Amino acid sequence: MSSHIPAPYLRLVDLLRQLPGIGKRAAQKMALNLLTTNIPLAEALAHELRSASRALTLCHRCHALAESSGEMTLCRICQLADIGKRELERVCVVEKPSDVWNLENVLVNEFRGVYHVLHGVLSPLKGYEHDDLEIDSLVRRIEEGEIHEVILATSSTLEGEATSLYLSKLLEGRVLVTRLAQGIAKGTELDNTDDITLVRAFLGRVEL
Amino acid sequence: MSSHIPAPYLRLVDLLRQLPGIGKRAAQKMALNLLTTNIPLAEALAHELRSASRALTLCHRCHALAESSGEMTLCRICQLADIGKRELERVCVVEKPSDVWNLENVLVNEFRGVYHVLHGVLSPLKGYEHDDLEIDSLVRRIEEGEIHEVILATSSTLEGEATSLYLSKLLEGRVLVTRLAQGIAKGTELDNTDDITLVRAFLGRVEL
Repeated sequence: MSSHIPAPYLRLVDLLRQLPGIGKRAAQKMALNLLTTNIPLAEALAHELRSASRALTLCHRCHALAESSGEMTLCRICQLADIGKRELERVCVVEKPSDVWNLENVLVNEFRGVYHVLHGVLSPLKGYEHDDLEIDSLVRRIEEGEIHEVILATSSTLEGEATSLYLSKLLEGRVLVTRLAQGIAKGTELDNTDDITLVRAFLGRVEL
Repeated sequence: MSSHIPAPYLRLVDLLRQLPGIGKRAAQKMALNLLTTNIPLAEALAHELRSASRALTLCHRCHALAESSGEMTLCRICQLADIGKRELERVCVVEKPSDVWNLENVLVNEFRGVYHVLHGVLSPLKGYEHDDLEIDSLVRRIEEGEIHEVILATSSTLEGEATSLYLSKLLEGRVLVTRLAQGIAKGTELDNTDDITLVRAFLGRVEL
């Protein structure tokens, strides 16, 4: 039936469909564009995908995206903390690496602490449980020492709130746990929050 | 300001944004997914982008997507025509390679002719003119010979109709020019037409 469609094109469409938010139609459009009018982009993407996936890794300590430097890679913020330029005592817990960048961009010098990236939120529906997130590594960081405050900066979605509540129960009594103030509109992800709201919510964080 | 964001990630986002229909937010989401949770997909995509862009090329004659076999590559349909299994006398003109596949899938044995892919439509707004499309090569095919009928199967959009009208004027008197019947809803692209409408429109094509 579709023997007239070249196999390499079909394979490329199948791979592109695995990207988040990309359906069949969008994948076909992208593949066709890459293979006909935009071959230089296909070559550049192939090169960058390979080199970026080799150059980048997750920070050994906070699991943010970091430029790889061997087995014990630290991200820039953790590196700065080790030379006393950021405070290891305050850890801001976020869902994903881009949340770190969003917060850094708007907070500038308001926050001198470090981060911890969970890589997801607890979600019974999607089957994301305690062990699927970087929770044990967070607990280990707290047990090992010098952390005074954990700022929970998960999204203000149902799942983000549930994760925040779960962590606050888990860490109760071990460390001061705070949460971004409810300046963030309900049901909104950090990504979609405007800068001022985000700064206000951060500065007005409340103890849980 | 954004020195904490690794450069390879930013470069990847910039490349992904050049894909059709991909905005900044979508590109960031894709890049993060590829570099954190889905590194095997990044490697597979890098490989397939490179191998597909090398394995595929445009058919030397009809400009459909074809598996490369040297300088004078012909697509499967043109190859079949050369051994008498498709009719070189009837040429169906479409906008893009995927239109060939869509038509082949629904027409099955209703159409035994060959194709010609314009790679776009005339669009004063986007700056697409005569020379940006495979129009001269179509005229050359007609001049060189054996074509009796040119079936215009451009989209039923404003630009598709204008392109069809332009071609019908250009080819007037040289060859029989037909157009897909107006069974296709106005303003709809071939991609979004259901199979029955597409077959009916093809079979009910009218002379221009």
